[in-house]
Amino acid sequence: MGNKNKEKKMGITVKKEEDMPEWYNQVILKAELADYSAIKGCMVIRPLGYAIWQKIMDTFNARIKKLGVKNAYFPLFIPESFFKKEAEHAEGFSPEVAWIENKDEDTKERLAIRPTSETIMYDSYSRWIRSWRDLPLRINQWANVVRWEVQDCKLFLRSREFLWQEGHCVYETEEEVKRETLIYLNEYKKLAEDLMAIPVLTGVKTEKEKFAGAIETTAIEAFMPDGKALQLGTSHNLGQGFAKAFGIEYIGKDEKKHYPWQNSWGVSTRFIGGLIMTHSDDKGLVLPPKIAPDQVVIVPIIFDDTKDKVLKKAKEIKDKLKKYSVIIDDREGYSSGWKFNEWELKGIPIRIEIGPKDIEKKQAVVVRRDTGKKEFIPLTNIAKTVDETLDDMQTNLFDKAKEFLDNNIVKIDNWKDFEKTIKDRKLVKMLFCGEVACEEEIKEKTKATSRCIPFEQESKKGVCVHCGKHAELEVYFSKAY
Amino acid sequence: MGNKNKEKKMGITVKKEEDMPEWYNQVILKAELADYSAIKGCMVIRPLGYAIWQKIMDTFNARIKKLGVKNAYFPLFIPESFFKKEAEHAEGFSPEVAWIENKDEDTKERLAIRPTSETIMYDSYSRWIRSWRDLPLRINQWANVVRWEVQDCKLFLRSREFLWQEGHCVYETEEEVKRETLIYLNEYKKLAEDLMAIPVLTGVKTEKEKFAGAIETTAIEAFMPDGKALQLGTSHNLGQGFAKAFGIEYIGKDEKKHYPWQNSWGVSTRFIGGLIMTHSDDKGLVLPPKIAPDQVVIVPIIFDDTKDKVLKKAKEIKDKLKKYSVIIDDREGYSSGWKFNEWELKGIPIRIEIGPKDIEKKQAVVVRRDTGKKEFIPLTNIAKTVDETLDDMQTNLFDKAKEFLDNNIVKIDNWKDFEKTIKDRKLVKMLFCGEVACEEEIKEKTKATSRCIPFEQESKKGVCVHCGKHAELEVYFSKAY
Repeated sequence: MGNKNKEKKMGITVKKEEDMPEWYNQVILKAELADYSAIKGCMVIRPLGYAIWQKIMDTFNARIKKLGVKNAYFPLFIPESFFKKEAEHAEGFSPEVAWIENKDEDTKERLAIRPTSETIMYDSYSRWIRSWRDLPLRINQWANVVRWEVQDCKLFLRSREFLWQEGHCVYETEEEVKRETLIYLNEYKKLAEDLMAIPVLTGVKTEKEKFAGAIETTAIEAFMPDGKALQLGTSHNLGQGFAKAFGIEYIGKDEKKHYPWQNSWGVSTRFIGGLIMTHSDDKGLVLPPKIAPDQVVIVPIIFDDTKDKVLKKAKEIKDKLKKYSVIIDDREGYSSGWKFNEWELKGIPIRIEIGPKDIEKKQAVVVRRDTGKKEFIPLTNIAKTVDETLDDMQTNLFDKAKEFLDNNIVKIDNWKDFEKTIKDRKLVKMLFCGEVACEEEIKEKTKATSRCIPFEQESKKGVCVHCGKHAELEVYFSKAY
Repeated sequence: MGNKNKEKKMGITVKKEEDMPEWYNQVILKAELADYSAIKGCMVIRPLGYAIWQKIMDTFNARIKKLGVKNAYFPLFIPESFFKKEAEHAEGFSPEVAWIENKDEDTKERLAIRPTSETIMYDSYSRWIRSWRDLPLRINQWANVVRWEVQDCKLFLRSREFLWQEGHCVYETEEEVKRETLIYLNEYKKLAEDLMAIPVLTGVKTEKEKFAGAIETTAIEAFMPDGKALQLGTSHNLGQGFAKAFGIEYIGKDEKKHYPWQNSWGVSTRFIGGLIMTHSDDKGLVLPPKIAPDQVVIVPIIFDDTKDKVLKKAKEIKDKLKKYSVIIDDREGYSSGWKFNEWELKGIPIRIEIGPKDIEKKQAVVVRRDTGKKEFIPLTNIAKTVDETLDDMQTNLFDKAKEFLDNNIVKIDNWKDFEKTIKDRKLVKMLFCGEVACEEEIKEKTKATSRCIPFEQESKKGVCVHCGKHAELEVYFSKAY
């Protein structure tokens, strides 16, 4: 058995409710999801964090393949002149661009490290697209991007380098771009809700919050337990602005030249931050079974004289659970109790304990991570119990988070209630004029920003809660990450 | 039917034997594997090229997972001071490092864009590794790296940015590091030979050619049809040098502090360049079935009055080939002949043509890409024919390439034959002293470099073919990419 003195101290030392930022950092560092690096503002994604990202990549790749999207890879560097071609885009990104010195003697143009790839991709598109036969063109890339922000690194939520996917499609008609921009947004909603059990609001971003260079930005927004919204994915209708700036033209069936319509859409490793905050608890990470890299850990309770028998039984149980990724933790040098704590910290959905006494009773102990419920299950029922428990856990985690979201939406119709609701760390729903100046004033006064204009509107008319001007749209406001 | 005037011109216009560099570029550009970009020296990997890379990633990920390796992701940036910690490593990479200006006010240290990640990873390792319990640590990352070389971009073979994987493991003992360094090399050999049908030589790099900072570099080397070798993968035994430079220490079971042993190993998108050169022909790309993103294309021969019937039959054939990735090319606006040419250009292993007359005769035309052989196959035999043809094609492509490699190895024992063999664009095998100065002279005189010291030696003793000093090792020499 393990030498307990040597075992590292690893529990979470603060409560989620009491100090969420510190709790969040401890979960990430102690569950070994990510780490700070020697480079200020950059993170290291450790194997557990990366396995979650891999699952997001695999799931999303399978879905977009069915939608006709193909993966590709474009250069990390972007010539400075490309940014200047689309004025709003350049203005939006310029403060946070990192530059390298171009060592080529024939051109001294500065090169940006991509903060997003519209410009470098559309330069290629302008050479690839000639005819209506080349459309729609649907390309996605998985890449690292760099945004040199001043803030300190918030692991997964805000770092100078992060990983993401960016989809960039080109269509013949406005109708197609409108339709498909929403299809990708809906795929993000499915990733959030079905895979990660994170309920989201969907809608259109206000003029102030939309992407630099887009006609319209749509988004999925989650609401975290500390009362701050987290934007998890965006899908932008870019109209024809970039096509005009980069000279993307096609010959239509009418044999005339036309500018095509474009969209771009992305989600990033920030998703993992939302996942951690939504479900995890004072014992550490909680992972919904569908996003968990491994669903079950079997911990054999080992004594010298019964070791072989117990390991054999553990292996038999694993063989019954072939549908899932199952770990047998037979490491030496650690006590069983230490292992239980470690797997709780690391969020594995189900732990199965099996020792010599259990074998005598033809049973095993099954412990469920989200509720902590511990049951003795006959060995013949293990597979069925695991199936049902994983299903129930996925549903339960979503339902809990959905209830929290629903309970935190407060419909208000006056400024006093707005201030109170934001102070109470809840999500405002209200009539808003949509004007940039009005929204800037709201942010200055309360730090709250608009989250989205939900697609489903109750078609009220009235006045803006803040400025009193005519307003037709209900909009969500809250503090946000 | 298609309007042939509008169809773009796309065939390869030079012969592989006559002008291989131009042929190579045309295959890549016209099969849409990759493209040049607006950034000098950087390439765009287009969907077909990326799908091949994805297949390499998926295959290799499954294999290294079984070996206990986990994927992670480390920062793109490396502080300048990190490079200086391991002197040989710093010297090896410094000419080709790209730098960004650090905008942080509290530190003005320059940041490199990673040319390789030993230093940034081992800085983290020095904090993660405490005890023998933390070893072995086996981590891999898939990432982009930047080496700012002066040369022009050679698509897939030499570009300022490329994609790769780099594995970095840490062990308690020298015996483990030696054993596992060769295990990863063997995985590379399997990737080359089993997946991509590229036969390789394996062995140890000479002192002159080894990795900057390694004790020993092992490599897989392929030999291209134009008589140049192509290094496809390397696995380095790093000894304890980086551990000492980065302060990686562990407490052993003996309760004392020790420096661990490390290796690193990598393959890159260069593999795709070797794949193209080895198998492709004057009609375009040829892909071994196992690496082909799609194995079969069905081209229905469409006339207005029989369209529905033919498409239905194409769908039935596809349903019989569920083991494979099968495309039905029912695009309008292109003639069948144009489609045949395009799929040949893009290297799909099998093309099945089905038209109304074929349906009457209960047959389809099956065309095999590597030999061009065209057969009428009864519809009841299609699945079996596809199975057998794909198997045979994979074997055939490997055997042809292996025969070429074997036929091009020339054992020599005097300098005159060395010069002649290199001039004839073949691969020399000879006794060599192993000294850096001698190898530099050989390179200066003939442009040939040592490729590797094969693991299997005939234990000859004698003198170095170039300098006449005592020599015990047979070594491969040739020109190389």
